[in-house]
Amino acid sequence: MTRRRDGERPLAFQDHYPDDVAHCFGCGRLNPQGHQLKSYWDGEETVAEFTPAPHHTAIPGYVYGGLIASLIDCHGTGTAAAVAARRAGIEPSSATVPALFPRFVTAALEVSYLAPTPLGPALVLRGRVAQATDRKVVTEVTVVAGGTVTARGTVVAVRMPERMVGG
Amino acid sequence: MTRRRDGERPLAFQDHYPDDVAHCFGCGRLNPQGHQLKSYWDGEETVAEFTPAPHHTAIPGYVYGGLIASLIDCHGTGTAAAVAARRAGIEPSSATVPALFPRFVTAALEVSYLAPTPLGPALVLRGRVAQATDRKVVTEVTVVAGGTVTARGTVVAVRMPERMVGG
Repeated sequence: MTRRRDGERPLAFQDHYPDDVAHCFGCGRLNPQGHQLKSYWDGEETVAEFTPAPHHTAIPGYVYGGLIASLIDCHGTGTAAAVAARRAGIEPSSATVPALFPRFVTAALEVSYLAPTPLGPALVLRGRVAQATDRKVVTEVTVVAGGTVTARGTVVAVRMPERMVGG
Repeated sequence: MTRRRDGERPLAFQDHYPDDVAHCFGCGRLNPQGHQLKSYWDGEETVAEFTPAPHHTAIPGYVYGGLIASLIDCHGTGTAAAVAARRAGIEPSSATVPALFPRFVTAALEVSYLAPTPLGPALVLRGRVAQATDRKVVTEVTVVAGGTVTARGTVVAVRMPERMVGG
C-alpha cells in the first residue's frame, strides 16, 4: 500500500468527487457524520483501510455485517470512478484543485461473510477490477482483518445517471 | 402491517434476542447508537419500517446504499430468528420476560438497487421466506420508498455458532 508522505501521496479517489456528489455516508468527504472511506491505487489493485468504532458491533466482539457491506460498496464505487478516470487519462493527484472523477452508483452488491470479523483491528479492503466499460465497472473486493480474509464481495457500479443530481 | 396498540402488539423479533447478542448496530435493542431495526410478522411475510436520517445520504436527495444493505441484512437475520422460533413453537409475545429467539448471522447478502431510494419517506422492508431449515434461512427482502420498490435483496442467514458468544 502506498503510504502517505506529506506532499507526495496522491489524494484518495473520493477526494476527486465533485462537491455536489461528495456527501455519501460511506465515503463522502463532505459528510462529517459519515465513514469517509478513502481508496487508493496499489498497482493494479485498489486499497482502503477502515477501523470500525466500538459501537459497530454485530455479536459482541465482531464487526456488524452491514458496515462491511457498506465499506465494500463504497470501495467498489470508488474503484469504478478511478477506473473510469484512468480510462480518460486522469490519475489521482495531490493538486489543490484536483481533476474530477466521474461518479458511479451501485447497481448490485453481493457479500459473502466467510468468517466473523473481529472488532478492533483496521480492516483492509482490496479491490480487483473484474470488468470495465465506460458505463459499468465490476470490482471484486476482499476484506482482511488481522491477516484473515473475513469477507468477499462483488460490486457492480454504473455511471451515475445525470438526472440524479439536483433532482 | 400489525399496528401497535399498547399491551396488544407483540414485541419485535429483535426484542426476543438474548441480552448477550442484542448489540448489533443495525438491530440490537442494547446498542443506543445503532439503528434498532424492529421486524414483525405480517401473515406469512415479515415487515419492518425505518426512516433514514438526513445524514444517511448517497448522492444528495437519496439514501446511502450501505444503509439499505444493512437494513436488508438485519431484517433477514431477524426473519430467520422468527422462523426458527416458530419452528420451535415460539411466537413473538409482549411478555415482560419474552421467550428467547435463536440468533442467526449472515452468511451471504445480495442487494440489487433497482432505482434511487429517495431520502425522506419511511422505508418499508418486507421479507418472504424462500427456504428454511433448522440451520439456515433464506429470505427475499424488498425495500419500498414512497410506494416504489427501490431495492431487492436476498439474505442467507445461518444459526450463530456457539463459539461466537463470550469468545
